[in-house]
Formats: sequence, structure tokens, C-alpha cells
Amino acid sequence: MHGQDALVFLLSLGLILGVARLLGEAARAFGLPLVVGELLTGLLLGATGLQRVLPGVHAWLFPTGAPAEMLSGYTTVAVVLLLVVAGLEVDLGIVRRRGKSALVVAALGIVMPLAGGLVLGYLVPDSVVGAPDHRGLFAIFMGVALSISALPVVAKTLLDLGLFKTDVGLLVMTVAMLDDLIGWVAFSVLLGPMQGGGIELGVLVRTIVLATGFALLCLIPGRRVIDRVLAAIEQNGELAPGRVLSLVAVVAMLGAAVTQAIGVHAVLGGFVVGVAFGDSPRLRERTRQTIHQFVTNVFAPVFFASVALHVDFVANFDPVLCLVVFLVATAAKLIGCAGGARFTGLPWRESLAVGFGLNARGAMEILLALLAREAKVINDSVFVALVTMAIATSLLAGPSMKRLLYPSAGRGGIRPDDAAGLVREGAFIPLLSSSTSAHAIEELGRALRPSIGDLVEPALISVLERELVAPTGLGDDVAIPHAAVEGLTKPVVALGLSPTGIDFNAPDGRPARIVFLLLLPPRAYEEEVRVLAALSRSVFDEAAREALLGATSLEEAVRCLDEHGRRIAGQAPGVRIPSLADI
Amino acid sequence: MHGQDALVFLLSLGLILGVARLLGEAARAFGLPLVVGELLTGLLLGATGLQRVLPGVHAWLFPTGAPAEMLSGYTTVAVVLLLVVAGLEVDLGIVRRRGKSALVVAALGIVMPLAGGLVLGYLVPDSVVGAPDHRGLFAIFMGVALSISALPVVAKTLLDLGLFKTDVGLLVMTVAMLDDLIGWVAFSVLLGPMQGGGIELGVLVRTIVLATGFALLCLIPGRRVIDRVLAAIEQNGELAPGRVLSLVAVVAMLGAAVTQAIGVHAVLGGFVVGVAFGDSPRLRERTRQTIHQFVTNVFAPVFFASVALHVDFVANFDPVLCLVVFLVATAAKLIGCAGGARFTGLPWRESLAVGFGLNARGAMEILLALLAREAKVINDSVFVALVTMAIATSLLAGPSMKRLLYPSAGRGGIRPDDAAGLVREGAFIPLLSSSTSAHAIEELGRALRPSIGDLVEPALISVLERELVAPTGLGDDVAIPHAAVEGLTKPVVALGLSPTGIDFNAPDGRPARIVFLLLLPPRAYEEEVRVLAALSRSVFDEAAREALLGATSLEEAVRCLDEHGRRIAGQAPGVRIPSLADI
Repeated sequence: MHGQDALVFLLSLGLILGVARLLGEAARAFGLPLVVGELLTGLLLGATGLQRVLPGVHAWLFPTGAPAEMLSGYTTVAVVLLLVVAGLEVDLGIVRRRGKSALVVAALGIVMPLAGGLVLGYLVPDSVVGAPDHRGLFAIFMGVALSISALPVVAKTLLDLGLFKTDVGLLVMTVAMLDDLIGWVAFSVLLGPMQGGGIELGVLVRTIVLATGFALLCLIPGRRVIDRVLAAIEQNGELAPGRVLSLVAVVAMLGAAVTQAIGVHAVLGGFVVGVAFGDSPRLRERTRQTIHQFVTNVFAPVFFASVALHVDFVANFDPVLCLVVFLVATAAKLIGCAGGARFTGLPWRESLAVGFGLNARGAMEILLALLAREAKVINDSVFVALVTMAIATSLLAGPSMKRLLYPSAGRGGIRPDDAAGLVREGAFIPLLSSSTSAHAIEELGRALRPSIGDLVEPALISVLERELVAPTGLGDDVAIPHAAVEGLTKPVVALGLSPTGIDFNAPDGRPARIVFLLLLPPRAYEEEVRVLAALSRSVFDEAAREALLGATSLEEAVRCLDEHGRRIAGQAPGVRIPSLADI
Repeated sequence: MHGQDALVFLLSLGLILGVARLLGEAARAFGLPLVVGELLTGLLLGATGLQRVLPGVHAWLFPTGAPAEMLSGYTTVAVVLLLVVAGLEVDLGIVRRRGKSALVVAALGIVMPLAGGLVLGYLVPDSVVGAPDHRGLFAIFMGVALSISALPVVAKTLLDLGLFKTDVGLLVMTVAMLDDLIGWVAFSVLLGPMQGGGIELGVLVRTIVLATGFALLCLIPGRRVIDRVLAAIEQNGELAPGRVLSLVAVVAMLGAAVTQAIGVHAVLGGFVVGVAFGDSPRLRERTRQTIHQFVTNVFAPVFFASVALHVDFVANFDPVLCLVVFLVATAAKLIGCAGGARFTGLPWRESLAVGFGLNARGAMEILLALLAREAKVINDSVFVALVTMAIATSLLAGPSMKRLLYPSAGRGGIRPDDAAGLVREGAFIPLLSSSTSAHAIEELGRALRPSIGDLVEPALISVLERELVAPTGLGDDVAIPHAAVEGLTKPVVALGLSPTGIDFNAPDGRPARIVFLLLLPPRAYEEEVRVLAALSRSVFDEAAREALLGATSLEEAVRCLDEHGRRIAGQAPGVRIPSLADI
């Protein structure tokens, strides 16, 4: 480490990270994704800003040579780990178990953007295409770029709307995962050979075969090996988190080196390794969060800001191109995903909501655009158009889903007294005797016999099945196991308390001390959304939960829910999962 | 990012980290510090191993140029963050509150190694001294190097022996913190000007003034500013951990850049920033652990291994030099620290234990030696001698403290039924009505009135005072508030249970559900150690804790403690704190 190089490197790294996080937080305060602020940092400190105003300072702070290479070492690790985090959020289990309907929507969600990309590829003038001779390939590339979605943004939107654990929410998440898996493989494969500007068919085929082979190797035998290694590590409980962290980092870097070696971008290695690890139930939430927090707060901002250092956004802003890319991207995703969802039996309104949810592109699209620009596959105006599209679609997702799913906040919206009313007509167990989620569900189900009679058994089966598909621990001490039950005409709720807590596999890793068993009439999508949101809001803040935990009779419990329900009426609904915060 | 550079960088990084972690774990399995395995990685992959066996592979994997600079960017961040972690473990609050006796021991603990360094400096032959003209400076440098201690190793040894929360333990920790603070400032100041081989008085004075000014600026106004910023960030509870992580990283890197700019090594910036952050009570344990885990498992191993890549350990192993350095280092610390401890009133046996505890040098000494070698202040044989000394003193600390403090395991050792017996003669509250640690201590203290009468009030005051100095939450649901009470002739215990838990500021962040209030006769050091260990061992495993939490009468509680006490008799004592695991 040479003194001057280390000085410049540490100063520029500290400055980039500091400004990026500040502007990121400012963006969040205005309701924009963090990544907008991080990109803005690149503009301010880079070609668009500092270089014009104080070229001397810029040249001293970001010289070529050793400090630039040192920074590039840091951002290389950053981008690999960023894709690991994206991969960790893919849950192959959910994809497998909800495969049928999800596959239809996912297939349409890829085919339509591909078609959109082809349209775009032939619409844009020659000047926009990097290599006009390969306009077809450029069009395919644009199609792949449009098919990417932003899992973290999608998940966070669903959470904020209280939809994460609903059927609509699960479908959206599953499709997003499938589309991303296919999209990233396709992108990485295309990126390698296209870097030269042209492409050879032989090289392309070889790369596709190797990349697909690598992905399958990681996801089928690799996943099992990882699961076994994690099991062995977990035996030594106390040391486990640190060892798992090392294992993830090592495997990700080696995976990234392998993909780089076979001519595919390093990001694919990171992503596939992330998926393989994320699929193991042994990877604890705490370890996921440690990785996620470090990457989001210490690595990712530097990557986004430092790559944007070299883009002149002002000079390359082409409003017509931006508008066209946005319209094509949105139309393709809406037709593909909403159409697919309608095809699987969802009503139109909910289907459109699915479409808007999956339309969010977020940081992942920006990452893809950055890598494509770095590889000279797209020029700066297409880059700026893709970034604009990513931000616009992400901003559009929440409000449009909200409007579609809660059509009239006045009548059909969430009534704060719903939770209290439902519990009053249902059942209450002040001290659950069960210590596992399955037993607790059974205990609560049996308590509902006076209300629903012989429907108890089929209801229990449905709820337990659904719990297997996707556990319902919401975090913050609350779980809401639920399912639709044939023969039921209105929602029924049983509330149980457990001071010691029962593990419902919540994202924060904490056991649930408040358990609502919720039974719903079949296909009551809107009601499901409304009641789930009402229940989770009734125990939204800690004071409400603590008060409820002290209740020893049905009357006390109902009074608690009622009071707190009223008090928080008007606040935004939603339970948030920190590990899925937007990037 | 150029394809080939990224490939080599990712591959070498993944390989170094993977091998370093594997060998680190192997070292741990043999009872050696992790860092031994990490250094061994450097030997295997570097000049001592791979370069001799397969020079072609070595040259491809660790070329000069871009990949080397990328790796150096990573290790630069690693070493800064490593010192941040070391700094975080310094608790200025404890230093301030236990200042008097600690200052005496700390002063002697620095003066004696300095004297030892001077002796060494004039003992060693010319060939060992980098610049024989500056033998005096070399001697001072060696003195500073010998005065460093290994906070994590010291803390872990104390924890393993069940001494962390005893008076002896607190004294050892406080002295270690003070010595490290002074040692690192002195080291960094010396390193800068000495890098050339010689030194100018003017430069040295300027550097000392600037470095001391920087440290004071960070530790007095800076600490307050950091505390306020953390308070502002904490208001947004959910987002806080991520923001704090960014803040720590940014301030550490800028601090490191500042120290580098004033001609002092970047590590000082990291260390001082770590101390300033660690001192704020608002920095949550969870955030500390996230930083600690990432640094220990993803950054630090690469640093230690990659720097050791270039040392030929075999050729530079000088057994006489190693032995002399070890003997001088140990003698100096023992005379300084044990003498100082005796001077403050501790019996000889406990004083010697303090000396051996502080004699552990661990990874921090190795880090210092690496940096000094890199700056060409010491040559490779002194480097190898310092590394050997660091490992030997760390290995010696645990066994010698154990032998001194538990002199005859048969008679004076831990009796498994101690806990049950003490609770039987004391008091038991099956359901504490308090929700804060202070109230719980009061509740338990008042329950002891039948046993100790009017001593309740002075006892409560002593316990509450001690709790303020150092909270007694041990983690794993257990807290043992305790103090010595004038007039008491034997230990007295009150046990209270709280299913919801009471915050005793435990290292794992979990509230205590089992609280032992322990009152001791004054100056009964050996008894304190024995009873504290017996209590913590009685609830050592989760089954024991769960059984105890179900107890509703004194008889049930005593039976639980008795049964589990017997069952685990023979197991190693100790509660472990993951955030302080050795590096």
C-alpha cells in the first residue's frame, strides 16, 4: 500500500459512499428509490458535475492508475455481492410449489417484453443502435432488458400494501423470480459475446451451453451440496453465522470467476450462487440480513455512484427515446403479466394489479443497463432511457396497485374496527398451549368449532397446506395463518396469544406471540386483502401488541383491538420486512 | 472492469479467502488463534509455498498490475475496518469510571514494555536493526510494539474462564483498552516518519502534534457529534441499522484518509473512529455484530493472508531472536501489569492473573508487525519473532489464568450444587413485576431482607452502582447483577424470573428472563469468581433455562438448578459473547 494511492483511494471511496448514502436517503424522503440518489452522486462528482466545475479537483480525486484500480477492486466485489443478494431473495421452493399458474404468467411476462424489444429494436434510428449490422441482436437484448423485474421493489410494494402474504402477492413474487432467473441468464450470455460489437454463432452457442450448464450445476447438485455443508456448519451454533458468511462470499467469488472464465459476465455467478444459497432453509434470516445490510449500505452505493461517474446524463437525455422505451416496457409487461394472470383465473382488476406490480424494474434494471453500457452494448442515450424507465415503472407500481386493489377507500377500504369485530364473532385463546406453528393452528381451528362446525377439519387442512407453501409469520411478534375454505360465506378469525412465542418462520426470525387464524370464503380476493390488512394493522405498533398480550378474556382482547384500531386509523397499512428494503 | 483482470482478481480473492477461512478453522480446532491459519494461507499460496512449487501458477494467480491493485483496494478497506472493530471494543465509559486503579496498571503496562524494548534494542545485533544509526528509535518502536495487547483475545479468555464480569476481569479489560489506545497512537506516529529509514525531529514533532490533535478531536467533540447523529438516526428505528453501518464506514474511511494525509498510517483513523463510535450507547449490539462478522469473516482473513504472501517464514526464522523477544515481552508485561495490579490492592495471585491476561498479544500484534514490515521499519526476522511472540503469549494466557484463579479444582473449584444451595438459602421470585433492570434489582434485594436485614439498602446501592459501571446481562436470557457488600460474611443470592424479559444490556441484545442478584462479602475475589461461574453454569444450556423458567416455587427452582448443575458438572465453564470472538 503506497501512501499517496491509499490516501486518494480512501478519500474518494469515503466521499462517494457518503454522498451516495446522503442523496439516497434524500431520494427516499421524496418517495424515490435509493438508487436514484446514488446515481445522482455519480453525476455530481463525475463527468456531469465536478469535472466541469473543478476539473483539477476531479483529476486529483479520481486519477487513472492505482487508485482507480483499487476502486475497481471494491466495485467488482460490490457488484458480485449485489447479485448474490438479489439471488438470495429468489425462493425456488415457492416457484416449485406454485409453479403451474406462475409458469404461464412468467412465460407471457418474458415473451411480451421480448416482442416489445423487437418492436423497439426496429423502431429506433440507426444512431441509437451500437452496431447497426446486428440490429436483430440489439432488439433481442432490449427484450431481455425489458423482461427483468425488481424483486426488492416488487416485494416492498406488496408489503406496503399488506399484500405480501396474499395469493395475488405470492403469484407476483413467483413470476418475478422466474423472470429474473431466466432474464439474468440470457443477459449474461448475450453480454459476453456482444462485447466486441459483433457476435459469432459458434461462440454464442458455446456460451449458452456453458452458462446454462453452470446454472443447472449450481441449482441442482450444487444446491444440495450447499444445503449439506450448511447443515454441517449449523451444528456448531455459535460460530455458524460467521462461517456461513465466509462460505457465501467464497462461493460467490469463485462462481463469479467461473462465469467470467466461460465468457459470461461475473454477475451471473453471483446471482446463481445467491439463488442456490437462498433456497436452503438452513440459511438463517439473521445471516441474510447481515449480508443484505452490508451490501446495501457499504458496497452497492459505491458501485452505482462510481459507474455513473462517467455518464453525462444531461447531454444524453433523449425525451422521445425515454418515452418510447417507457411505453413499450410498460405495455409489454402489462399485456404479458396481466393477461397471464387473467388466464389463470384471477379477476381483471387483480390481474392488472399483478401486471403493474411486475412492471417495477428498479435497481436491477439500472444495474443491467450499467453493465451493458460498460460493455459498450448500448450507448449513453439508451442507457439514460433505460434508467428513466426503471425509475418511472418503480414509482408507478405502488399507487396503481393500491388504486386497483382498494378501489374505494371510503366503502370497500380498510375499516379499523374489522379486526375487533372479527375476533368478537370468532374465538380467543389467551394462552396457547402449543409450541409449534402446526399445533397452534390446530388449537385455534378447534376453538372455531362453535362458529363453523364441521368445516374445522377441511379448514385446518387448507391452512396447514398453505403454511407449508409460504409461512405466515409477519415479523414483530405476529403471524396470520390463513386459507380459503370451500363452504364458508364470510371471514372467521381465531386469536391466540403465546407469551413465549411460536416459530412461524418470520422474516425477522422472532417467534410469533400473537397468532390470528383467518379463514376466508373461496375466491374472495378483495376481502382477503382487506381483512389481512385490517388484522396486521390492528397490531401495527408495539404498544398495541403489548396491550393485547396482557388480555386474558375475549372482552379485553376485543377492547384492545378496537382501541388501537381506532387510534391508528388513517396511518398507512403495512408490515415491513427489513431484508427486502429497496436497494 | 476488464474481463481478464476481473477474472484473476475474483479467483485469487475467492481462493485466498476460502483457504484462509479453512485453515483458520483448523487452527481454532487445535486451540490456536484464527490468525495463525490465515497467516499459514499466505505461506502456502505465497513465497514460501506455491511460488517455489508452481511458479507459473503463482505468477498467473498473483500478477503485478491491475489485479494486484484491485486486491490492494480490498485489503486497504479490510485493514481500516479491522481497526474500526478493534476500536469499537474499547469502552471509554468503563475507562473513565474505573480510571484510578486502571491508570496505575496501564501506566506500568506501558512503561515496562518500553523499558523492555530499550533493553531489546540494545541487545540485538546490528543485522536485525533496520537502520543501525537509529538504534534508539528502533528500541522505542519495539517498546511500543510490546505494549500492544489483544483486546479480543483478552476478552475471550476472560469469558471462557467466567471472569468477564468480575472485578479482576473489568480491570484487565480497562487496562488493555488504555494500553491499546496509547500504543496505537504512538505506533502510527512513529511509523510515518520512520518509513524512510531515518527520522527528522521537526517532522516527528509535527506528526505527534497533528496525530494527537486528530485523536483528541475525534474523541472529545467528535464523539459527542457522533452520539447526536446516532440519536437522530435511531429515531427512524427500522432503517437505523443500515444507516449506522454506512455512517461508520464513511467516517472510518475519511478518518483513515485524514491520518494518511497528516503522515500517520491509515489504521489510526480507523481505530480512533471505532473508539468514538463504540463509546456511544446508541450503537446497537446488532450493528456492532454485523460489522464485526463481516470484517472477521470476509475482510480480515484476506488481509492477513495476502500480506503474508510475501514473507518467507522458513528462511527468516531465528530461534534465539524469537525466544528473546518472547521472554522480554512476557517479563515486561508481567512485571508492569501484575505489579500495578498488586499496587492497587489485588492479592498476588489475582495480580499475576491480570499480568498473564494482558500478556496476550494476538492478531493486533501481528497486524502491527505486518504494517511495520511493510513500511520497512523492521526486517523479516524481527517480523517472524513478533508473530511467534504474539501467538505464544496468546496461547499462554488462558491456562495460566485458570491455574492461578482456580488453584485446586478439587477443593476450591466450582461445585455444581453451589447455585442450588445459594438459592435455597436466599430468595426466589417466580414472576418479577418489574420491567426495568433497576426495579428488578430492587425487587430482588427487598426479597433478601429475611436473610440480610438492614444490609438490603447498602447492598442495593452497591449493586446499582456496579450495574451502571458495567451492565451484567450475560446473554442467553441470563443476568447476574452483583456487588460486594461491607458486613456480609458469605454470598447471598436472590433468583427472579421474568417471562417477558428485562433489558440488562446483554451482548446478544436479548432481555434477561432469569436474574440472579448476587451479594458478596468484600474483597472475596476467589469466591466471586467461583460463585459467578457456578450461577452462570447452572443455566448454561437452554434446556436448563427453559426448565427453570417453568418453576413456580422455591422448591421447584432449587430442584431445577440442582439437577442441571449435576448434569453439566465437568463441562467447561463460561458464557460466550460472539461479538468478541477472537480474530
